[in-house]
Amino acid sequence: MKGLVLGVDPGSLNTGFGVIRAEADRLTHLAHGRIAVSSRLPLELRLCQIYDGLRELIREHQPQTLALEDIFLANNVKSAFALGQVRGVVLLAAAQASLPVHLYAPLVVKKAVVGYGGASKAQVKLMVEQLLGLKVNNNHAADALAVGVCHLFHSRTLSFYS
Amino acid sequence: MKGLVLGVDPGSLNTGFGVIRAEADRLTHLAHGRIAVSSRLPLELRLCQIYDGLRELIREHQPQTLALEDIFLANNVKSAFALGQVRGVVLLAAAQASLPVHLYAPLVVKKAVVGYGGASKAQVKLMVEQLLGLKVNNNHAADALAVGVCHLFHSRTLSFYS
Repeated sequence: MKGLVLGVDPGSLNTGFGVIRAEADRLTHLAHGRIAVSSRLPLELRLCQIYDGLRELIREHQPQTLALEDIFLANNVKSAFALGQVRGVVLLAAAQASLPVHLYAPLVVKKAVVGYGGASKAQVKLMVEQLLGLKVNNNHAADALAVGVCHLFHSRTLSFYS
Repeated sequence: MKGLVLGVDPGSLNTGFGVIRAEADRLTHLAHGRIAVSSRLPLELRLCQIYDGLRELIREHQPQTLALEDIFLANNVKSAFALGQVRGVVLLAAAQASLPVHLYAPLVVKKAVVGYGGASKAQVKLMVEQLLGLKVNNNHAADALAVGVCHLFHSRTLSFYS
Protein backbone atom coordinates (compact mmCIF):
# COMPACT_ATOMS: atom_id res chain seq x y z
CA MET A 1 0.00 0.00 0.00
CA LYS A 2 1.58 3.24 -1.14
CA GLY A 3 0.45 6.64 -2.24
CA LEU A 4 -0.81 10.05 -1.28
CA VAL A 5 -4.47 10.68 -1.95
CA LEU A 6 -6.77 13.66 -1.70
CA GLY A 7 -10.30 12.45 -1.00
CA VAL A 8 -13.05 14.96 -1.72
CA ASP A 9 -16.73 15.05 -0.84
CA PRO A 10 -18.20 17.84 -2.99
CA GLY A 11 -21.14 19.82 -1.66
CA SER A 12 -22.85 23.09 -2.51
CA LEU A 13 -22.06 24.63 0.87
CA ASN A 14 -19.52 22.25 2.42
CA THR A 15 -16.90 20.41 0.45
CA GLY A 16 -15.11 17.90 2.65
CA PHE A 17 -11.51 16.95 2.07
CA GLY A 18 -9.02 14.51 3.50
CA VAL A 19 -5.36 13.95 2.69
CA ILE A 20 -3.96 10.51 3.54
CA ARG A 21 -0.59 8.93 2.93
CA ALA A 22 -0.11 5.17 2.70
CA GLU A 23 3.25 3.52 3.28
CA ALA A 24 3.67 -0.21 3.73
CA ASP A 25 0.77 -1.21 5.98
CA ARG A 26 0.34 2.20 7.50
CA LEU A 27 -2.12 4.97 6.77
CA THR A 28 -1.11 8.45 7.89
CA HIS A 29 -3.57 11.27 8.05
CA LEU A 30 -2.08 14.56 6.84
CA ALA A 31 -5.08 16.88 6.79
CA HIS A 32 -8.83 16.97 6.75
CA GLY A 33 -11.57 19.56 6.94
CA ARG A 34 -14.10 21.28 4.79
CA ILE A 35 -14.21 24.21 2.44
CA ALA A 36 -17.29 26.04 3.66
CA VAL A 37 -18.93 28.68 1.50
CA SER A 38 -21.72 31.06 2.37
CA SER A 39 -25.13 30.46 0.81
CA ARG A 40 -25.45 34.24 0.59
CA LEU A 41 -22.68 34.41 -2.04
CA PRO A 42 -23.63 34.15 -5.72
CA LEU A 43 -23.12 30.60 -6.95
CA GLU A 44 -20.22 31.49 -9.24
CA LEU A 45 -18.26 33.02 -6.35
CA ARG A 46 -18.92 29.96 -4.23
CA LEU A 47 -17.54 27.79 -7.01
CA CYS A 48 -14.52 30.07 -7.16
CA GLN A 49 -13.83 29.61 -3.44
CA ILE A 50 -14.15 25.83 -3.68
CA TYR A 51 -11.83 25.77 -6.69
CA ASP A 52 -9.28 28.04 -5.00
CA GLY A 53 -9.43 25.97 -1.81
CA LEU A 54 -8.77 22.75 -3.71
CA ARG A 55 -5.93 24.28 -5.72
CA GLU A 56 -4.36 25.38 -2.45
CA LEU A 57 -4.72 21.88 -0.94
CA ILE A 58 -3.19 20.31 -4.05
CA ARG A 59 -0.30 22.80 -4.00
CA GLU A 60 0.34 22.21 -0.32
CA HIS A 61 0.12 18.42 -0.18
CA GLN A 62 1.02 17.40 -3.74
CA PRO A 63 -1.26 14.35 -3.79
CA GLN A 64 -0.84 11.70 -6.48
CA THR A 65 -4.54 11.09 -6.92
CA LEU A 66 -7.90 12.64 -6.28
CA ALA A 67 -10.62 10.26 -5.13
CA LEU A 68 -14.36 10.94 -5.24
CA GLU A 69 -17.58 9.06 -4.78
CA ASP A 70 -18.87 8.09 -8.17
CA ILE A 71 -22.61 8.13 -8.02
CA PHE A 72 -24.46 10.79 -6.20
CA LEU A 73 -27.81 9.67 -4.94
CA ALA A 74 -29.52 12.96 -5.63
CA ASN A 75 -33.04 13.33 -4.35
CA ASN A 76 -34.06 15.21 -7.42
CA VAL A 77 -32.92 16.81 -10.65
CA LYS A 78 -32.35 20.19 -9.00
CA SER A 79 -29.99 18.92 -6.33
CA ALA A 80 -28.16 16.73 -8.88
CA PHE A 81 -27.63 19.82 -10.97
CA ALA A 82 -26.37 21.88 -8.01
CA LEU A 83 -23.99 19.16 -6.93
CA GLY A 84 -22.81 18.56 -10.49
CA GLN A 85 -21.66 22.17 -10.65
CA VAL A 86 -19.41 21.72 -7.64
CA ARG A 87 -18.10 18.42 -8.93
CA GLY A 88 -17.25 20.02 -12.27
CA VAL A 89 -15.01 22.50 -10.50
CA VAL A 90 -13.37 19.74 -8.41
CA LEU A 91 -12.61 17.69 -11.54
CA LEU A 92 -11.22 20.76 -13.29
CA ALA A 93 -8.83 21.51 -10.41
CA ALA A 94 -7.64 17.89 -10.55
CA ALA A 95 -7.14 17.89 -14.31
CA GLN A 96 -5.24 21.17 -14.23
CA ALA A 97 -2.83 19.70 -11.69
CA SER A 98 -2.52 16.52 -13.81
CA LEU A 99 -4.00 14.53 -10.93
CA PRO A 100 -5.66 11.29 -12.01
CA VAL A 101 -9.22 11.07 -10.71
CA HIS A 102 -10.54 7.83 -9.25
CA LEU A 103 -14.22 7.34 -8.68
CA TYR A 104 -15.75 4.84 -6.28
CA ALA A 105 -19.40 3.94 -5.89
CA PRO A 106 -20.75 4.59 -2.36
CA LEU A 107 -21.20 0.85 -1.85
CA VAL A 108 -17.56 0.22 -2.74
CA VAL A 109 -16.42 2.90 -0.27
CA LYS A 110 -18.48 1.37 2.54
CA LYS A 111 -17.26 -2.09 1.71
CA ALA A 112 -13.62 -0.99 1.63
CA VAL A 113 -13.80 0.96 4.90
CA VAL A 114 -16.24 -1.07 7.01
CA GLY A 115 -16.22 -4.36 5.12
CA TYR A 116 -19.95 -4.17 4.51
CA GLY A 117 -21.71 -2.32 1.66
CA GLY A 118 -24.78 -1.62 3.75
CA ALA A 119 -22.87 0.18 6.51
CA SER A 120 -24.35 3.38 7.94
CA LYS A 121 -22.69 6.78 7.68
CA ALA A 122 -21.95 6.62 11.42
CA GLN A 123 -20.21 3.25 11.02
CA VAL A 124 -18.10 4.59 8.16
CA LYS A 125 -17.08 7.61 10.24
CA LEU A 126 -16.18 5.46 13.25
CA MET A 127 -14.08 3.13 11.13
CA VAL A 128 -12.28 6.03 9.44
CA GLU A 129 -11.47 7.44 12.88
CA GLN A 130 -10.11 4.08 14.05
CA LEU A 131 -8.06 3.49 10.91
CA LEU A 132 -6.48 6.94 11.03
CA GLY A 133 -6.35 7.32 14.82
CA LEU A 134 -8.19 10.62 15.04
CA LYS A 135 -11.54 12.22 15.79
CA VAL A 136 -13.38 13.78 12.87
CA ASN A 137 -15.93 16.40 13.84
CA ASN A 138 -17.31 16.98 10.40
CA ASN A 139 -19.35 14.56 8.29
CA HIS A 140 -18.14 16.00 4.99
CA ALA A 141 -14.52 15.54 6.03
CA ALA A 142 -15.32 12.00 7.24
CA ASP A 143 -16.83 11.14 3.85
CA ALA A 144 -13.81 12.59 2.07
CA LEU A 145 -11.41 10.60 4.27
CA ALA A 146 -13.49 7.46 3.65
CA VAL A 147 -13.19 7.70 -0.13
CA GLY A 148 -9.46 8.40 0.30
CA VAL A 149 -9.03 5.29 2.47
CA CYS A 150 -11.05 3.33 -0.07
CA HIS A 151 -8.72 4.44 -2.83
CA LEU A 152 -5.60 3.44 -0.90
CA PHE A 153 -7.07 0.02 -0.04
CA HIS A 154 -7.93 -0.51 -3.68
CA SER A 155 -4.46 0.49 -4.84
CA ARG A 156 -3.13 -2.11 -2.42
CA THR A 157 -5.40 -4.77 -3.82
CA LEU A 158 -4.41 -3.89 -7.34
CA SER A 159 -0.71 -3.95 -6.53
CA PHE A 160 -0.98 -7.63 -5.56
CA TYR A 161 -1.53 -8.34 -9.20
CA SER A 162 1.04 -6.00 -10.65
CA MET B 1 -29.56 48.97 -25.77
CA LYS B 2 -25.86 48.72 -25.03
CA GLY B 3 -23.41 46.05 -24.02
CA LEU B 4 -21.27 43.13 -25.04
CA VAL B 5 -22.52 39.74 -23.97
CA LEU B 6 -21.20 36.19 -24.14
CA GLY B 7 -24.12 33.78 -24.33
CA VAL B 8 -23.32 30.18 -23.46
CA ASP B 9 -25.24 26.95 -23.88
CA PRO B 10 -23.35 24.39 -21.77
CA GLY B 11 -23.32 20.76 -22.88
CA SER B 12 -21.32 17.65 -22.05
CA LEU B 13 -20.03 17.30 -25.60
CA ASN B 14 -20.93 20.59 -27.27
CA THR B 15 -20.91 23.92 -25.50
CA GLY B 16 -22.39 26.59 -27.73
CA PHE B 17 -21.29 30.21 -27.51
CA GLY B 18 -22.26 33.49 -29.07
CA VAL B 19 -20.76 36.95 -28.66
CA ILE B 20 -23.05 39.88 -29.46
CA ARG B 21 -22.60 43.61 -29.17
CA ALA B 22 -25.52 46.00 -28.75
CA GLU B 23 -25.27 49.68 -29.60
CA ALA B 24 -28.28 51.95 -29.87
CA ASP B 25 -30.87 49.83 -31.68
CA ARG B 26 -28.39 47.61 -33.37
CA LEU B 27 -27.20 44.11 -32.53
CA THR B 28 -23.86 43.08 -33.98
CA HIS B 29 -22.75 39.50 -34.03
CA LEU B 30 -19.04 39.13 -33.22
CA ALA B 31 -18.61 35.38 -32.97
CA HIS B 32 -20.44 32.14 -32.47
CA GLY B 33 -19.68 28.46 -32.51
CA ARG B 34 -19.26 25.54 -30.19
CA ILE B 35 -16.55 24.08 -28.03
CA ALA B 36 -16.71 20.43 -29.01
CA VAL B 37 -15.04 17.80 -26.86
CA SER B 38 -14.56 14.13 -27.53
CA SER B 39 -16.62 11.65 -25.54
CA ARG B 40 -13.54 9.42 -25.53
CA LEU B 41 -11.66 11.85 -23.29
CA PRO B 42 -11.94 11.43 -19.51
CA LEU B 43 -14.55 13.80 -18.11
CA GLU B 44 -12.03 15.96 -16.25
CA LEU B 45 -10.06 16.63 -19.44
CA ARG B 46 -13.28 17.52 -21.26
CA LEU B 47 -14.07 20.03 -18.52
CA CYS B 48 -10.56 21.42 -18.89
CA GLN B 49 -11.05 21.98 -22.62
CA ILE B 50 -14.41 23.71 -22.08
CA TYR B 51 -12.89 25.91 -19.38
CA ASP B 52 -9.87 26.78 -21.53
CA GLY B 53 -12.09 27.52 -24.52
CA LEU B 54 -14.25 29.90 -22.50
CA ARG B 55 -11.25 31.65 -20.96
CA GLU B 56 -9.92 32.18 -24.47
CA LEU B 57 -13.25 33.61 -25.67
CA ILE B 58 -13.42 35.94 -22.68
CA ARG B 59 -9.83 37.09 -23.24
CA GLU B 60 -10.45 37.70 -26.92
CA HIS B 61 -13.80 39.47 -26.77
CA GLN B 62 -13.78 41.03 -23.29
CA PRO B 63 -17.53 40.68 -22.77
CA GLN B 64 -19.25 42.59 -19.97
CA THR B 65 -21.64 39.81 -19.06
CA LEU B 66 -22.11 36.09 -19.38
CA ALA B 67 -25.68 34.94 -20.07
CA LEU B 68 -27.00 31.42 -19.54
CA GLU B 69 -30.30 29.63 -19.50
CA ASP B 70 -31.38 29.27 -15.92
CA ILE B 71 -33.23 26.03 -15.61
CA PHE B 72 -32.14 22.94 -17.37
CA LEU B 73 -34.98 20.61 -18.11
CA ALA B 74 -32.98 17.48 -17.48
CA ASN B 75 -34.62 14.21 -18.38
CA ASN B 76 -33.18 12.56 -15.36
CA VAL B 77 -30.84 12.93 -12.41
CA LYS B 78 -27.89 11.53 -14.32
CA SER B 79 -28.08 14.04 -17.16
CA ALA B 80 -28.70 16.89 -14.71
CA PHE B 81 -25.56 15.86 -12.89
CA ALA B 82 -23.50 15.68 -16.11
CA LEU B 83 -24.72 19.05 -17.27
CA GLY B 84 -24.21 20.59 -13.85
CA GLN B 85 -20.53 19.69 -14.07
CA VAL B 86 -20.12 21.66 -17.28
CA ARG B 87 -22.11 24.57 -15.94
CA GLY B 88 -19.92 24.69 -12.84
CA VAL B 89 -16.87 25.18 -15.02
CA VAL B 90 -18.62 27.88 -17.09
CA LEU B 91 -19.60 29.79 -13.96
CA LEU B 92 -16.07 29.49 -12.59
CA ALA B 93 -14.56 30.94 -15.77
CA ALA B 94 -17.02 33.86 -15.54
CA ALA B 95 -16.31 34.54 -11.88
CA GLN B 96 -12.55 34.43 -12.40
CA ALA B 97 -12.88 37.07 -15.10
CA SER B 98 -15.17 39.14 -12.83
CA LEU B 99 -17.97 38.73 -15.36
CA PRO B 100 -21.44 39.09 -13.89
CA VAL B 101 -23.60 36.08 -14.73
CA HIS B 102 -27.21 36.55 -15.82
CA LEU B 103 -29.60 33.63 -15.91
CA TYR B 104 -32.78 33.50 -17.95
CA ALA B 105 -35.46 30.83 -17.86
CA PRO B 106 -36.00 29.11 -21.24
CA LEU B 107 -39.47 30.63 -21.45
CA VAL B 108 -38.03 34.12 -20.96
CA VAL B 109 -35.46 33.52 -23.71
CA LYS B 110 -38.15 32.38 -26.15
CA LYS B 111 -40.38 35.29 -25.25
CA ALA B 112 -37.55 37.80 -25.69
CA VAL B 113 -36.38 36.42 -29.02
CA VAL B 114 -39.60 35.24 -30.69
CA GLY B 115 -42.18 37.13 -28.64
CA TYR B 116 -43.87 33.90 -27.59
CA GLY B 117 -42.87 31.63 -24.67
CA GLY B 118 -44.07 28.50 -26.42
CA ALA B 119 -41.87 29.00 -29.51
CA SER B 120 -40.09 25.96 -30.95
CA LYS B 121 -36.31 25.63 -31.11
CA ALA B 122 -36.51 26.09 -34.89
CA GLN B 123 -38.43 29.35 -34.48
CA VAL B 124 -35.88 30.64 -31.98
CA LYS B 125 -33.03 29.80 -34.35
CA LEU B 126 -34.74 31.47 -37.31
CA MET B 127 -35.41 34.63 -35.31
CA VAL B 128 -31.81 34.75 -34.02
CA GLU B 129 -30.62 34.46 -37.62
CA GLN B 130 -32.90 37.30 -38.73
CA LEU B 131 -31.98 39.56 -35.83
CA LEU B 132 -28.25 39.08 -36.35
CA GLY B 133 -28.30 38.74 -40.13
CA LEU B 134 -26.48 35.44 -40.36
CA LYS B 135 -26.93 31.71 -40.81
CA VAL B 136 -26.19 29.52 -37.79
CA ASN B 137 -25.39 25.93 -38.62
CA ASN B 138 -25.20 24.68 -35.10
CA ASN B 139 -28.06 24.36 -32.61
CA HIS B 140 -25.82 24.85 -29.58
CA ALA B 141 -24.49 28.10 -31.01
CA ALA B 142 -28.05 29.19 -31.88
CA ASP B 143 -29.16 28.58 -28.28
CA ALA B 144 -26.17 30.52 -26.98
CA LEU B 145 -26.90 33.45 -29.30
CA ALA B 146 -30.56 33.36 -28.24
CA VAL B 147 -29.75 33.75 -24.56
CA GLY B 148 -27.28 36.52 -25.47
CA VAL B 149 -29.96 38.37 -27.46
CA CYS B 150 -32.39 37.85 -24.58
CA HIS B 151 -29.92 39.45 -22.18
CA LEU B 152 -29.38 42.49 -24.41
CA PHE B 153 -33.14 42.96 -24.87
CA HIS B 154 -33.61 42.77 -21.13
CA SER B 155 -30.84 45.27 -20.46
CA ARG B 156 -32.66 47.60 -22.83
CA THR B 157 -35.92 47.18 -20.99
CA LEU B 158 -34.23 47.81 -17.69
CA SER B 159 -32.47 50.92 -18.95
CA PHE B 160 -35.87 52.57 -19.63
CA TYR B 161 -36.33 52.73 -15.89
CA SER B 162 -32.86 53.77 -14.93
